[in-house]
Amino acid sequence: MENFQNIEKEKYKILSNIKSLKDLKNLSYSELEKLCREIRKKIVYTVSRNGGHLASNLGIVELTVALHKEFNSPEDKIVWDTGHQGYAHKLITGRFLNFDTLKKKDGVGAFISPFESEHDSFIAGHSSISLSAACGIAKALSLKNSKSTVIAVIGDGALTGGIAYEALNNAYNLKNLIIILNCNDMSISKTVGSFYRYIASIRSNETYVYMRNGFDRFLEKIPLMGEFFKNTLFSSKQALKKMVYKSNFFNELGYSFLNFVDGHNIKEIVKALRWAKATEKPAIVQICTKKGKGYSFSEERPELYHGVSPFDVKTGVVEKKDKLNFSAVFGKEIVELAKKDEKICAITAAMGVATGLFEFEKKFKERYFDVGIAEEHAATFAAGLAKEGILPVFAVYSTFLQRSYDQLIHDISILNLHVVLAIDRAGISDEGPTHQGVFDVSFLTTIPNIKIYSPATYSELKNMFEKALYKEEGLVAVRYPKGVEISENLEYFDEDFSVFGEGEIVLVSYGILFEEVLRAKENLNRQGIEVCCIKINKIFPITETLIEKLKKYKEIFFFEEGMKNGGIGEHISLELTKGCYEGKFNLTAIDGVFVRQMSRLEALVELKLDSKHIEKEVLKSAVVVKNSLLVNEKNKG
Amino acid sequence: MENFQNIEKEKYKILSNIKSLKDLKNLSYSELEKLCREIRKKIVYTVSRNGGHLASNLGIVELTVALHKEFNSPEDKIVWDTGHQGYAHKLITGRFLNFDTLKKKDGVGAFISPFESEHDSFIAGHSSISLSAACGIAKALSLKNSKSTVIAVIGDGALTGGIAYEALNNAYNLKNLIIILNCNDMSISKTVGSFYRYIASIRSNETYVYMRNGFDRFLEKIPLMGEFFKNTLFSSKQALKKMVYKSNFFNELGYSFLNFVDGHNIKEIVKALRWAKATEKPAIVQICTKKGKGYSFSEERPELYHGVSPFDVKTGVVEKKDKLNFSAVFGKEIVELAKKDEKICAITAAMGVATGLFEFEKKFKERYFDVGIAEEHAATFAAGLAKEGILPVFAVYSTFLQRSYDQLIHDISILNLHVVLAIDRAGISDEGPTHQGVFDVSFLTTIPNIKIYSPATYSELKNMFEKALYKEEGLVAVRYPKGVEISENLEYFDEDFSVFGEGEIVLVSYGILFEEVLRAKENLNRQGIEVCCIKINKIFPITETLIEKLKKYKEIFFFEEGMKNGGIGEHISLELTKGCYEGKFNLTAIDGVFVRQMSRLEALVELKLDSKHIEKEVLKSAVVVKNSLLVNEKNKG
Repeated sequence: MENFQNIEKEKYKILSNIKSLKDLKNLSYSELEKLCREIRKKIVYTVSRNGGHLASNLGIVELTVALHKEFNSPEDKIVWDTGHQGYAHKLITGRFLNFDTLKKKDGVGAFISPFESEHDSFIAGHSSISLSAACGIAKALSLKNSKSTVIAVIGDGALTGGIAYEALNNAYNLKNLIIILNCNDMSISKTVGSFYRYIASIRSNETYVYMRNGFDRFLEKIPLMGEFFKNTLFSSKQALKKMVYKSNFFNELGYSFLNFVDGHNIKEIVKALRWAKATEKPAIVQICTKKGKGYSFSEERPELYHGVSPFDVKTGVVEKKDKLNFSAVFGKEIVELAKKDEKICAITAAMGVATGLFEFEKKFKERYFDVGIAEEHAATFAAGLAKEGILPVFAVYSTFLQRSYDQLIHDISILNLHVVLAIDRAGISDEGPTHQGVFDVSFLTTIPNIKIYSPATYSELKNMFEKALYKEEGLVAVRYPKGVEISENLEYFDEDFSVFGEGEIVLVSYGILFEEVLRAKENLNRQGIEVCCIKINKIFPITETLIEKLKKYKEIFFFEEGMKNGGIGEHISLELTKGCYEGKFNLTAIDGVFVRQMSRLEALVELKLDSKHIEKEVLKSAVVVKNSLLVNEKNKG
Repeated sequence: MENFQNIEKEKYKILSNIKSLKDLKNLSYSELEKLCREIRKKIVYTVSRNGGHLASNLGIVELTVALHKEFNSPEDKIVWDTGHQGYAHKLITGRFLNFDTLKKKDGVGAFISPFESEHDSFIAGHSSISLSAACGIAKALSLKNSKSTVIAVIGDGALTGGIAYEALNNAYNLKNLIIILNCNDMSISKTVGSFYRYIASIRSNETYVYMRNGFDRFLEKIPLMGEFFKNTLFSSKQALKKMVYKSNFFNELGYSFLNFVDGHNIKEIVKALRWAKATEKPAIVQICTKKGKGYSFSEERPELYHGVSPFDVKTGVVEKKDKLNFSAVFGKEIVELAKKDEKICAITAAMGVATGLFEFEKKFKERYFDVGIAEEHAATFAAGLAKEGILPVFAVYSTFLQRSYDQLIHDISILNLHVVLAIDRAGISDEGPTHQGVFDVSFLTTIPNIKIYSPATYSELKNMFEKALYKEEGLVAVRYPKGVEISENLEYFDEDFSVFGEGEIVLVSYGILFEEVLRAKENLNRQGIEVCCIKINKIFPITETLIEKLKKYKEIFFFEEGMKNGGIGEHISLELTKGCYEGKFNLTAIDGVFVRQMSRLEALVELKLDSKHIEKEVLKSAVVVKNSLLVNEKNKG
């Protein structure tokens, strides 16, 4: 445990010399330990500048090194879960030299990605999928008669996701599969649920694994002679095993299970991996690691250093963001409302702190439900609460809500149950294609009777959230982005949409993208071009009033920080068509692409959704050109 | 086990006198047994006429009666899973008299629904959600200080769904919750996976439950005196229990677990329910039932009588459908292609027979994967296979594919992996709002790079499926309905769309809805009104060629058997707007409503998508009116 005071002075002597994984395999154990130290330094140093996932990455340095020592990537496939555990892996598989570009546009990605390296055998962004992907990969390899091994690495937190269990239920006959269960007592928040406690309870029984190791070797030495003997021995082996080992769930499901492996001891891990490779069944190896390992501040408060902004390496002090943000405002508002209304409950899928529910949890423990990384259950659980008159608020990232789509339709909306979705991280994310919050408007508006609000300021968020709770019925969503409100001082008139300025041309948008639109409008106004703006507040359903208003303009420019297909712009276009609109409708939205890793502003530029592009787009307008000509003629005349 | 030869002659003496659940509670056990017999008769008789779910409903008659004897619905909440187990429940909760309307429009629903009765405490259509809903309901009741009990009934097949496990992971502290685990060895197909085998292995140890019952009573009699004694006794109790009981997963998760209860013995079930109510932890009671119980034919072949067409009660012979259907054609085609290409794999989520994969399973066992009711895993498993060069085909009902939405985006499409979705039951379903296949086009077209085909005939299905496998990359869907091809003899020209006839007005559609459009066209033609038709074959992405073609018509009528929002019609409308189309575009699609239970044809009429309404809609057209006027004038002149 150290603070890397001299980090700048030291060189990455071993790490920088790992040109290929062969170089790593040639190192002695003591050199491997030094390598781990260098990897940690590089991670701490880089994340301190770029921000990123720190604690989880520091926890599995030895595991990563051991995996690459023992297996031959890319022939053997290491499938990482969630992927914010991939930094050490990236550093030793060819991404050391450009690791300073971590999380930057065109730089090293925040998550594992096959686009980046052949050693990244599958994508990893959303949690709990590694076992399913590894099942597919393992089955494919065996169909191709490959001798390679597939190793899935999954955290105990990710195991709260149902898909992981669906995979466990299917993987029991994949002999070329090894599952590494990385137990560190917490996913992003503390791991919840009884299954976790169950695993922890197995782990606490230290002695029995060692006993088992010896015993297994003994049993393996018993030769199998003839059918009679074989069966007899087999059943007595089973009986003996049951007596000696505490039988556990994984064994019963058909896996070889080894637990309590010290996740910071490379030799131990390698030993365990060899055992796993040799065993005839698919193996589950529980590796015990410490999140934040090797950097004092993150060891002490791993949750603070999960996804972290730039910080000072010597003091551990994270760059202070003075400004409020939407999550915090939501967090305060739900506490205020819950004080007055004891029907309000808050549900999170392992994102309590990130979605601003920290205070709510402390104040209303009985009404706070962290269900683990289980978005399907979260939605249906909310439906159950609502069915009995409780007022559930499911706070969830836009990208993770994709997992609840069926539940939103089937369990909530058919019965028109009153559930409020507080959709955080809506819009473009700076974490790359796996985390974009740009699908929710499209998939939500397929659902009959849903209502969607899109605040651009904190006061709007408060106002809309209260409306969602008390003025609406059925499924209601309030969606807001990461970060801060728009800087313009907008008055929210409690209407479904607000109009700014006058003109024959209107620029329309919603959410914080409206800031770009407003800026473009002001620039255009300064050039003497009359354009006005409409900001939609309640973005769905589309109202007749809005359509009637829009029809009065000669040309409409709609800008949307979300998918074009099924988005609000498309819906409005259709309504205008139905209403025989005679002007021109232009739509700029995300059109059939995944937005790569870059900052939101960089993405807006690429997608032509920034104020400069908006301005340019409007300047191309026929109406603008005509009006300018008129102005010019007037001036001449 | 009987064949109900005299079914018509007998009266439902007891069943018809159950006016309220009080009447049921007053019956003796022998009367309750007679009641069960009458319920079975009523079910067999009704399903033999209307079709419906037979085997599952016959299996849980005694369980249903016992639940209503022991608990007080609607104060106590019985939450059914999947809901094709709800007939007995419906018959004794006020729906006996109109049970002949089962599955008919405005009649008794195919599934459990709170719209129908206050005794239906939650909706049940999609599998595996009962535990999550029951968690919400149980928590709500305890927040309201209610003393009611919540009983979730879930089959062993439904337990293969991840959401059930997410709920199990969270329900361990809900003392007012009882989970009935209805074990009948099969969901729709045979239950798959190691978890099921595990439960079965517990069950096979018959003696230990009885032993446990006595032992529990003994332990409960030991008084707790003082802290020291209490702890000592507690730990020795634990130790004793562990020695005597085989420790199992459910116990370890924090549940009281009672198993091997005879599901056809009302007294036994009631005893078990009382135990469950009395225990301090949430209880799981495993009830062993026989699917199809009490009707010889369905007992012998329960899978044939899962969801069944009308049949002859005396002989068990199901009304023969001579015609082929889309599922069967798909099933044959994938077998043919798999013979030539060993890369082809088929994946199903417990729907192998229903999706036509019966033959494939027999022929290519190694390449056939029934993953259980686990659509999330199925999609990501397919992604893993595809990542390693295998050609996975996921055959799935449209409505259940909603569960894979996140996986389609995150695990398949970001990497542009080549996975083929064979989407069965696309379009309107006759099973009510929970089973409509009307969302897939909308949610799929939000996904970048997806391609979607929509055949209307068997030859088209074959052709398109082959294209999806060999001419496309990335995620490709071929979506087709339940039932038969359209009767028109269309030639499929291997083009993205086909044009029929000439005129200034065009009627556009896709899939089998095109039959209605074609019929309307012919009627209109007969009236001297010149309209032509376009049938889109590859419905997404929208091609420029199609838009250019469409722009040549003065008026376009688009008809879609799917949601308006995010549907093909909307996408086309936007493209036309972008292309400065000057004619009129009309769209008829499903607009913000859930389609209730009725036949497809009835639904088409209600949604104005049948040929008659299509004809009417076109007759309102300005172009038609103008042209007719011209014709009239000509005739006059």
